[in-house]
Amino acid sequence: MTDTVVSSDRKEVVIGFERPFCVIGERINPTGRKLLMEEMKKGDYSRVEADAVAQVEAGANMLDINAGIPLADEPAILAETIKLVQGLVDVPLSIDSSIVAALESGLSVYKGKALVNSVTGEDERLEEVLPLIKKYGAAVVAISNDETGISEDPDMRFEVARKIVERAADFGIPASDIVVDPLVMPVGAVNKAGASVFRLIRRLHDELKVNTTCGASNISFGLPNRHGMNASFLSMAIGAGMTSAIMNPLHEEEMTGIRGADVMMGRDPDCMRWIKKYREPAAPVEAGAGGSRRDREGRRRRRA
Amino acid sequence: MTDTVVSSDRKEVVIGFERPFCVIGERINPTGRKLLMEEMKKGDYSRVEADAVAQVEAGANMLDINAGIPLADEPAILAETIKLVQGLVDVPLSIDSSIVAALESGLSVYKGKALVNSVTGEDERLEEVLPLIKKYGAAVVAISNDETGISEDPDMRFEVARKIVERAADFGIPASDIVVDPLVMPVGAVNKAGASVFRLIRRLHDELKVNTTCGASNISFGLPNRHGMNASFLSMAIGAGMTSAIMNPLHEEEMTGIRGADVMMGRDPDCMRWIKKYREPAAPVEAGAGGSRRDREGRRRRRA
Repeated sequence: MTDTVVSSDRKEVVIGFERPFCVIGERINPTGRKLLMEEMKKGDYSRVEADAVAQVEAGANMLDINAGIPLADEPAILAETIKLVQGLVDVPLSIDSSIVAALESGLSVYKGKALVNSVTGEDERLEEVLPLIKKYGAAVVAISNDETGISEDPDMRFEVARKIVERAADFGIPASDIVVDPLVMPVGAVNKAGASVFRLIRRLHDELKVNTTCGASNISFGLPNRHGMNASFLSMAIGAGMTSAIMNPLHEEEMTGIRGADVMMGRDPDCMRWIKKYREPAAPVEAGAGGSRRDREGRRRRRA
Repeated sequence: MTDTVVSSDRKEVVIGFERPFCVIGERINPTGRKLLMEEMKKGDYSRVEADAVAQVEAGANMLDINAGIPLADEPAILAETIKLVQGLVDVPLSIDSSIVAALESGLSVYKGKALVNSVTGEDERLEEVLPLIKKYGAAVVAISNDETGISEDPDMRFEVARKIVERAADFGIPASDIVVDPLVMPVGAVNKAGASVFRLIRRLHDELKVNTTCGASNISFGLPNRHGMNASFLSMAIGAGMTSAIMNPLHEEEMTGIRGADVMMGRDPDCMRWIKKYREPAAPVEAGAGGSRRDREGRRRRRA
């Protein structure tokens, strides 16, 4: 049973084997969002603010913050974004960059214990990122690829994760502060991607005893009905032992898949969170003949 | 790797470890359907016929047939219903009754290799039902309860299943002709019901090496948003090794959970069934400004 504790200055969140699944909101990331990118570059953070609030309202337990903008001062923009978001919402943040100077800049302004996203199994990255994790007392996402790339063999990826955990221990970082990303491949390209990643998640849970996360929507890349597939993937990944995901909490199907899986795993005592979310509203007193559409659907569902 | 082969006179269906999930349509069952009950009692099978066709069109791979009507001639009605349904659709049937004489009556008119639903671990039931299974060369659903009732301990239920498999072997019935129902309890009443049944399904798959089925909607009894919860349950149960379920194939959310899980388990080669089901229709050529609602949703989904 492993708990990874992260925090803001006002709130502690635990990613853990016996905890409700941890949803890390992915929206504050200019990659592929041209408008957001231009705004952040100009110092306009209105969309960042709206995205922060909307994601937390939708149920995000943490937010990922990425400021990867080509030819911009990423360390400065990342720090600025973190300060702003921490002033607005109380959930802990994941500091997301491929540039080590940006990670350090973000960590230097962050209040609480952050999750750093990410380090890979490449020796050079490990030597650069792990000292920062130790210095700031942070937790870190460990991506299970290395100099040789991403192996299609889940057991090879397991060995990369084990190497990162061992190297971190050399720096005095406990395994409980490492959240492994097993790397989710698109099932439309790699037909065994689902089965492979479940096997890997199970080994990471049972043998390496670490928490796990992933970019959940990767699984459905290029396929129709992505939300339906993501929801099914998330339920199954939680069944296999996955404890968090970086994802869009505004997508209701995916969130239902997660809430259902939390119930199934016995992590929603007496189904109270499920019932609170989905219980039928009381029938409106002044409804016209036949009631509102919502009311009709409510009745239909009760008969199901 | 275990295959349970069932058939009609025109079609073979295999429930198996490496096969797409087998959906057994549950609708032809008068329990709790007063109108259907009265009609079947009077010899009016129009609703049975409509239900048979609709379920197969919705994706049922088999149909369960139950004629449990109090104070009626169940053996005669069950046989009549089976003959009628076999004339109408080509999927194999599950012959469902708690009355042994009705099971025999159904088996005597059935064309092909039926699935008999069900036998329990009670000695008296085993002595009555197993000879019938052997005589007609059928497969059978084995429910994991016995004289002592339904244990809340999944390991006790495993032992009941093992007993049924051993007793069946005494009658010359192979384990591959036994589909174990691990018994799904409502998670609203038994908070550990999900985790328990996944553990049991995994043991039945890995140790006893038998196929499994269940009444899937039991899991969500008494809770709101039953379809969302059932979908999540089905995906996770498939991940744990469940190979069929008795359920309503007209419910889209549940079917999406199953199709997604089949993709995840690598049982939908190149995602062809998923893509065929969910691919976007071509944009209509003569759509007005803004296109149809369906078209707008299509575009939104493509951006997701």
